[in-house]
Amino acid sequence: MSKSTGCCQGFLHYAFDYETPKTLIIPSIRVGFVFRFTQFLLLLYVVGYVCVVQKAYQDRESVISTVTTKVKGFAFTNISNMQPRFWDVVDYNIPPQGDDSFFVMTNMVMTPGQTQSRCPELPTPSTTCVDDCDCVEGYNDPRGNGIRTGLCENYSSTVKTCEVLSWCPLEIDTNLPKRALLAEAENFTVLIKNSITYPKFNFHKRNILSHINSTYLKTCEFNRQTHPNCPIFRLKHIVSEAGEDFQDMAVKGGVLGILIDWSCDLDWWARKCYPKYTFRRLDNKHPVNNVAPGYNFRFAKYYRTAEGEEVRTLIKAYGIRFDVIVFGTAGKFGIVPTIVNLGAALSFLSLVPMLADWFILTCMKKRDLYSRQKSTYLVEESEAESASLSTTYGTQ
Amino acid sequence: MSKSTGCCQGFLHYAFDYETPKTLIIPSIRVGFVFRFTQFLLLLYVVGYVCVVQKAYQDRESVISTVTTKVKGFAFTNISNMQPRFWDVVDYNIPPQGDDSFFVMTNMVMTPGQTQSRCPELPTPSTTCVDDCDCVEGYNDPRGNGIRTGLCENYSSTVKTCEVLSWCPLEIDTNLPKRALLAEAENFTVLIKNSITYPKFNFHKRNILSHINSTYLKTCEFNRQTHPNCPIFRLKHIVSEAGEDFQDMAVKGGVLGILIDWSCDLDWWARKCYPKYTFRRLDNKHPVNNVAPGYNFRFAKYYRTAEGEEVRTLIKAYGIRFDVIVFGTAGKFGIVPTIVNLGAALSFLSLVPMLADWFILTCMKKRDLYSRQKSTYLVEESEAESASLSTTYGTQ
Amino acid sequence: MSKSTGCCQGFLHYAFDYETPKTLIIPSIRVGFVFRFTQFLLLLYVVGYVCVVQKAYQDRESVISTVTTKVKGFAFTNISNMQPRFWDVVDYNIPPQGDDSFFVMTNMVMTPGQTQSRCPELPTPSTTCVDDCDCVEGYNDPRGNGIRTGLCENYSSTVKTCEVLSWCPLEIDTNLPKRALLAEAENFTVLIKNSITYPKFNFHKRNILSHINSTYLKTCEFNRQTHPNCPIFRLKHIVSEAGEDFQDMAVKGGVLGILIDWSCDLDWWARKCYPKYTFRRLDNKHPVNNVAPGYNFRFAKYYRTAEGEEVRTLIKAYGIRFDVIVFGTAGKFGIVPTIVNLGAALSFLSLVPMLADWFILTCMKKRDLYSRQKSTYLVEESEAESASLSTTYGTQ
Repeated sequence: MSKSTGCCQGFLHYAFDYETPKTLIIPSIRVGFVFRFTQFLLLLYVVGYVCVVQKAYQDRESVISTVTTKVKGFAFTNISNMQPRFWDVVDYNIPPQGDDSFFVMTNMVMTPGQTQSRCPELPTPSTTCVDDCDCVEGYNDPRGNGIRTGLCENYSSTVKTCEVLSWCPLEIDTNLPKRALLAEAENFTVLIKNSITYPKFNFHKRNILSHINSTYLKTCEFNRQTHPNCPIFRLKHIVSEAGEDFQDMAVKGGVLGILIDWSCDLDWWARKCYPKYTFRRLDNKHPVNNVAPGYNFRFAKYYRTAEGEEVRTLIKAYGIRFDVIVFGTAGKFGIVPTIVNLGAALSFLSLVPMLADWFILTCMKKRDLYSRQKSTYLVEESEAESASLSTTYGTQ
Repeated sequence: MSKSTGCCQGFLHYAFDYETPKTLIIPSIRVGFVFRFTQFLLLLYVVGYVCVVQKAYQDRESVISTVTTKVKGFAFTNISNMQPRFWDVVDYNIPPQGDDSFFVMTNMVMTPGQTQSRCPELPTPSTTCVDDCDCVEGYNDPRGNGIRTGLCENYSSTVKTCEVLSWCPLEIDTNLPKRALLAEAENFTVLIKNSITYPKFNFHKRNILSHINSTYLKTCEFNRQTHPNCPIFRLKHIVSEAGEDFQDMAVKGGVLGILIDWSCDLDWWARKCYPKYTFRRLDNKHPVNNVAPGYNFRFAKYYRTAEGEEVRTLIKAYGIRFDVIVFGTAGKFGIVPTIVNLGAALSFLSLVPMLADWFILTCMKKRDLYSRQKSTYLVEESEAESASLSTTYGTQ
Repeated sequence: MSKSTGCCQGFLHYAFDYETPKTLIIPSIRVGFVFRFTQFLLLLYVVGYVCVVQKAYQDRESVISTVTTKVKGFAFTNISNMQPRFWDVVDYNIPPQGDDSFFVMTNMVMTPGQTQSRCPELPTPSTTCVDDCDCVEGYNDPRGNGIRTGLCENYSSTVKTCEVLSWCPLEIDTNLPKRALLAEAENFTVLIKNSITYPKFNFHKRNILSHINSTYLKTCEFNRQTHPNCPIFRLKHIVSEAGEDFQDMAVKGGVLGILIDWSCDLDWWARKCYPKYTFRRLDNKHPVNNVAPGYNFRFAKYYRTAEGEEVRTLIKAYGIRFDVIVFGTAGKFGIVPTIVNLGAALSFLSLVPMLADWFILTCMKKRDLYSRQKSTYLVEESEAESASLSTTYGTQ
């Protein structure tokens, strides 16, 4: 090596002299086996668990979806306190647009002929009265049905209640039919069209798979075993798959989730990326720890009499709201997650020699021999030159 | 070591001879302390920041949710240009189904008695005319209200405007009440039922927590301090938590977000996985840099006269749209993220010896001694055998 | 080094003796260059690909958004089998609320004057009959239109069909206009207001950007080249950007996605976080492999005659449903992903010396020299002291 070390050459030496660790080779099958076996276990984890099971080498993205639904079916009701009536989709399906949430009315309390007028309140402890003094004019009871006029009127021949300004006659929703009015709704069917996108991977797919033809679609009906890819569902079947009884649920209503899982591996199985349907009741049916159980809402049809007065038919609709919930993540090979997972595995591989060293220096019979030849204690300058090797042994 | 190295044994040697780096032990407390302290700092980062603060050892998943809402309350209006009127949920809550977005009408411009007919346009610079020549028949002004018939008619005793074919009489939405018509809406309440799922972790929960009973639910009202888990919200309270004034907002309407955060740690605190409610106005209330401020839409009630003519009552409804936005991610221990984060930390740990070496070789007094005993320059073959150790010192 | 090693001092030695690998310095430019070049390539990957291209140092979060939409425009129809009629937003836009999914009716089959009564079925092979025996009373044909009364009636002078109990007269939806009724709908415009949030980063933004003023908003119209940030869209323009023809699509309806991409880098370009609009048809227009192509739904307007009988006008509405789909992920510097990615890169850097060693020991001319000075075979105790260095050479 030259002794005229200019600045530039010094830098060259600094940058390009290659420094490699000196090693001691221990020709012991036992040690070598421990070392290789640990490496093998780690490789197994990387290949087996990280790559095959978890697919950690993939970039991931959540699904984006649109849903259209179309309910079909009709029913006929003939009960005592109502005229015989025919019900079609337009009557029981609200809202009619058919997006990812649709409602099928199964039971109802109808109050026809309501007008803006005055009538006595429904009798409850806070509304019954003896004379007008009990009814404060203008009082707005949050649990009542209107604004009090200040009068006490006969609700029936035996009970007097405060008169209110409201839509009269008032709705009496306590005599809800015990058996659902539209019990036949269990045989209605719904066609669900779902189109999904994974924008990052430029992947589009529909739940009507490409190998299905129109003729099949006109006659098929979803069944997990026999027709798992048919997009037409019988309501009774959906509800029973969710572990509920349709007729039970129909009386007070409920919310039922139609979950469509689009989790896919777009590397190998893009063509096998099929939707998986599951069904689950989403509301709480137990009356304990609950408020307003079931599912219902009120709507009205407004009319105008020949005299121009506004009249409405109030309907408290009980029924099943079906929520189509689309979820899933797609994975596709990505360089960054691959590098990150390989890097992490490599880090652990670099632990293996430490483990093997520990094994050598504590568990092997010849550990002192190994230790002496592997490690050298620092030798102070004075004694260094001549004694470097021997002192190493002496100090231990 | 045998000298008859067959191919197989050669491979065995190659595969199972264990090669371990020779090391120099420097018994210096100062160096050792720097080394251990840096290791300790890194461990602190891994345990403290990565594990405790960021929970990077967890798999994550986004929430899937369904919402049902139910508004309660009624109001009574008695203003000059309208008959006294009672309003209940069916009148002001549109759409009635009660899903994750509900609208409470607070103000309105009502135009009753519209029919398909002809009437003079509302006077604007582009619609006023002197005679029929100013009005092109069939012209369809995008900012007008109908198709021109070609006639110029008296709008009032002083102004003549082009006649249009439209729903007449035309709506005049400039005289919007300054004080919201349904100012009482601030006392309406809404019950929000929210049911969530983390499908990957098979975790389901509702915002009506299991320790809450029905009696409490019938009387409680959400309050961040006293009733943080009550699912019933007074509209005024929601709006004021969002930093807005209900009466201000009610005049022109707006969009208010009810944000429910379900971020949870499912490893330790699955039972403490509670929803966190926040409220935020989502539209822009400032008239600068805005178009069509507030929130309104038009709808109509269609009637039919005894003669069969179609008549409609047009309502331009102003009000507050409440959007229930459910978000959050759950985390649960996952092997892959754990390995990845530990691996990254290990990588940094493997940097520590490099740092310590640099410290030894540049900052310590005895750096020349250390350097001489740590590193050996390569010796050319000729001088090798005998002089290997001594030359190392000489070349430096 | 002291020989009175107490327990405590022994521990101190164990913990604070610094053990550093002994190294061999090889002053070869060629080896050094291979070493440094590989390091440089890895650094380039880390800086270039991981940081600049993939931004892997960022935490990521999905967007949360609310949308309000408002359609504008009116049309006039004058076709043979209907009275001349003027259509405004209230007539063709269903539902009227203007949330992230809105429907513009473009074609329709109207069946006025339906009442609950009896009428002969539409003639199909399964409904035609010769006499009453062919019609089972109470039979409910899923593909029919009502419940059979058991009578066989004249549908026309030539055909007899079973009489059903239903909303009569029945809808005949086969004569759908070939040219869309509201062809003028292509000139309707829609204002889309979109407000987004990245809750983790506390970032809020609207699609009406802050540098846009109200005057501009009143006149502008979206155009990818000239007005890319105008939130007002002409329906024809949207449909043609999606690669479809509006008039074609208007006849049978369809679903059109307005995709708003809010992917943003919040570290450097938070102010440049703009929405990117794309448009895509979401339903399948090809009649093969499809069922119920297009998009339609039925709704009704209910009336009441002077005698109190319920009458409805049934409308089968065909049209385009526009789904505003907001997606995107924001990234912002995060310590954990940074550390993880740096750690992975460091792991790979630690592979570089292994690569260089392999290069030295197999590709270089002086490989035997290097090998001899780098690695030492373990020497058995008996021969150790004197012969350690020489035997190493001998065994190779």
